[in-house]
Amino acid sequence: MTKSSPYERLTARFRLIATIGECVSMLSWDASAVMPPGGAAARGDQLAVLAVLRHQNLTAAEVEADLAAADTCDAWDVANLRLMRHMYRRARALPDDLVEAQAKANSSCEKVWRVARERSDFSLVRAHLAEVVRLTREAAVALGDALGLTPYDALMDGYQQGVGAADVEPIFTAYEAFLSDTLPEAERHQAAQPVGTQPVGPFPIVEQERLCREIAGRLGLNFEHARLDQSAHPFSGGTPTDVRITTRYLEDDFAPAILAVVHETGHALYERGLPKAYARQPVGEAAGMAVHESQSLIVEMQAFRSDPFLSWLGGRLHAAFGGAAEPYRLENLGRLWRHVKRSTIRVDADELTYPAHVILRFRLEQALVGGHLDVVDLPAAWSDGLKALLDVTPPDDAQGCLQDIHWYDGAFGYFPSYTLGAMSAAQLMEAARARVPGLDEAFGRGDLSPLLAWLRVHVHQVGSRYDLNAILEQATGRKLDPLAFQAHLRRRYLGRDTNQRKD
Amino acid sequence: MTKSSPYERLTARFRLIATIGECVSMLSWDASAVMPPGGAAARGDQLAVLAVLRHQNLTAAEVEADLAAADTCDAWDVANLRLMRHMYRRARALPDDLVEAQAKANSSCEKVWRVARERSDFSLVRAHLAEVVRLTREAAVALGDALGLTPYDALMDGYQQGVGAADVEPIFTAYEAFLSDTLPEAERHQAAQPVGTQPVGPFPIVEQERLCREIAGRLGLNFEHARLDQSAHPFSGGTPTDVRITTRYLEDDFAPAILAVVHETGHALYERGLPKAYARQPVGEAAGMAVHESQSLIVEMQAFRSDPFLSWLGGRLHAAFGGAAEPYRLENLGRLWRHVKRSTIRVDADELTYPAHVILRFRLEQALVGGHLDVVDLPAAWSDGLKALLDVTPPDDAQGCLQDIHWYDGAFGYFPSYTLGAMSAAQLMEAARARVPGLDEAFGRGDLSPLLAWLRVHVHQVGSRYDLNAILEQATGRKLDPLAFQAHLRRRYLGRDTNQRKD
Repeated sequence: MTKSSPYERLTARFRLIATIGECVSMLSWDASAVMPPGGAAARGDQLAVLAVLRHQNLTAAEVEADLAAADTCDAWDVANLRLMRHMYRRARALPDDLVEAQAKANSSCEKVWRVARERSDFSLVRAHLAEVVRLTREAAVALGDALGLTPYDALMDGYQQGVGAADVEPIFTAYEAFLSDTLPEAERHQAAQPVGTQPVGPFPIVEQERLCREIAGRLGLNFEHARLDQSAHPFSGGTPTDVRITTRYLEDDFAPAILAVVHETGHALYERGLPKAYARQPVGEAAGMAVHESQSLIVEMQAFRSDPFLSWLGGRLHAAFGGAAEPYRLENLGRLWRHVKRSTIRVDADELTYPAHVILRFRLEQALVGGHLDVVDLPAAWSDGLKALLDVTPPDDAQGCLQDIHWYDGAFGYFPSYTLGAMSAAQLMEAARARVPGLDEAFGRGDLSPLLAWLRVHVHQVGSRYDLNAILEQATGRKLDPLAFQAHLRRRYLGRDTNQRKD
Repeated sequence: MTKSSPYERLTARFRLIATIGECVSMLSWDASAVMPPGGAAARGDQLAVLAVLRHQNLTAAEVEADLAAADTCDAWDVANLRLMRHMYRRARALPDDLVEAQAKANSSCEKVWRVARERSDFSLVRAHLAEVVRLTREAAVALGDALGLTPYDALMDGYQQGVGAADVEPIFTAYEAFLSDTLPEAERHQAAQPVGTQPVGPFPIVEQERLCREIAGRLGLNFEHARLDQSAHPFSGGTPTDVRITTRYLEDDFAPAILAVVHETGHALYERGLPKAYARQPVGEAAGMAVHESQSLIVEMQAFRSDPFLSWLGGRLHAAFGGAAEPYRLENLGRLWRHVKRSTIRVDADELTYPAHVILRFRLEQALVGGHLDVVDLPAAWSDGLKALLDVTPPDDAQGCLQDIHWYDGAFGYFPSYTLGAMSAAQLMEAARARVPGLDEAFGRGDLSPLLAWLRVHVHQVGSRYDLNAILEQATGRKLDPLAFQAHLRRRYLGRDTNQRKD
């Protein structure tokens, strides 16, 4: 029994592929959130088997003919078919033995990296990383050939379609210039203000968790379709009807748990809002990692850390934890949670200096993949780069080039997404503020719903029908424009509400 | 690249099939233990996709030729190959459209059953069950033809190879006779004793959980390779290196939580003890549901509810919950936890009357599958059967033929495993007591390890190399012999240590 048309056969096949992907998602969540350590080896095998089954189904002999013959005029289906062809082309570009070699090299490099970071000794993992880079380069060349992209752009394409290094480079160069002026000014501005008062704990974890659930629910997460758990590194996973977010709790500081839940809730709301009519089709999926990050950051950085939302939150925090009211006042929460500090660690960075960490990695990974930087020279290049960008120097490898898992796990081309997401979030918020009445008043009641409704229409429901720039264009009237982010940072960190935009 | 021999290709293929099965296991655990309700529909699709992928890999064109050509002389591999052929024959026996029709009918019947049971109205689910029975009969005939078994035996074979209705019938008939003498006598014996004193709670769930973990650990479960969670119906799942057991907690009674954990730990210890050298091969798997149940029941019923173990436990319970010492004394725990009571509900039954519930279902499901009992007559047949066996009558359908999920989910031929397991457990314990010195002394210290070591060698490490009867024969010197169970029940419920065995 064959399906009636090539396109119908393809939608059935991609539904199967996406459903295998859902199994991968759930089992990956399990591995990070609840799996006992003794299950790790078997889990690795399970995920590898699912990857093979997914790949086999994507590259089966009949797919090529169906992709060639398929035809449709519905705009969604046209986009879907384009994305199917793109997925197929990426899957076919890499020979099976290269895929296998990469899986092995990435997995063993990642294991050694954990030891190397623990001991803060890059030399332990250097040879492993060199092998990962060598195979990544080989894959990037093959993918680039298949897609008509440069090797590095072919890697970026795996995380965010439609944005290449040539788009990002001028944006990042401009940000560097902006930062060299703005960072010292922000530091002076901050030094002239009182220092924030840290609330004094302990803050019982049971109470923190209750509050995290309340806040996530308040932001729009429905626990009929979601879970909140704990993991060493907070993340968002699962599937659109069963999203799984995690956080981690410190008994003496509630900020990390709450801020992580808010961030991951932004990711989760995006997944929840994807178009149901195209569930399990490429066009029904999230539009890439930069768009995903824009949705976590618009919730966390733009909405939640805004004055009105923090005012609402202060009352809830004080009610939950008691004690003096002072640390929970807006002014104080602002000083604590919107504090600029040059750091050697990306994940600890504030939103003003965070892009510097991304710019550093973007340049270094281009050089590694392009063969212009030898792995042996990475620690020095890292130090020099960070010094030039932020005038800080990592005291050791652990706080330098060993801090992030990405490269050691074979993920090159991912880092720009963080900053593209931050910039997109600012641009989307600027447009939402201009178009949605009562946004900040709602934030003042702890209510994200007017913003969420706007994001549902302009971002979530779009799925992958448009790419990052097209989403921004239809939502805000223009492509990615980093000035909205700069204006946001000036307002927040220089106390200046001068919008320098010329349009 | 082909593997060097047909048998090597087969082991690679069955490893893949088993690994897909592990994914099914983990996702099923997730569905029962942690999944938010909104994830159910997608989870159903995920499990269906994995079932299809498993079936496709098992019935692929090259398998038949490899199975025909494969050859090996190692005894383990010979057994493995035999089991592979058996799995293949079962998988090929059923046409794809029948498998699909069964999956749909079972799933929709199960959903309607939940409503029918809630409302205690069999008529609501009657038509659905009739369809399930019709398809089950069709499948049973096809399986029977392929395996050279009667239709009902072909269903039993799916749960416990090597045991058919003709083996079970005389065992059950003998048990009926035994029960008609022993039950009234046990009731008289019990009536002559003081009534047990229920400890008075509340028993904080946090403390119950701590104790459950301690007991499971004490029994030999290593939480590096295991989890304990909560679910509506306790179960054991996961994989051999990552077993997942669940229980449920009542604040006013700790018995259900602890007894369920002990039972599921027995299952989990079996999975943990399976031969690692044959992991993911048919011969390395558990030897069937009756053997599985023997391992939960030897831990729960034979070891844990024995006098020495309960003495140890009493001290631990009193230390954990405080209050009066009296309810925690051995004599009292024995009266509470070894109490005979005729019930209409299988899962509430004591070990003496439990087989009556199984015998009832065994006869009814044979009649349903054989076409001698119409679904419309099931409630009356159920009532009559239970009356004859235990002289009790269910007050309504919910406490009658709607109480168990099995048939409504398409599981026919499973029920005998419970009682075959109970009988095997008694027989294994009798042999262990005769052969392992210091068993009961160890129980008195809360130590299962001498028994576990013996079970490791004689049951767990055997995997599926032998079937139920062969396992019993090599472990105890004889095939399944229900007299050991009768002797155990006489000792425990009549206070008589007269072993009536003639050998």
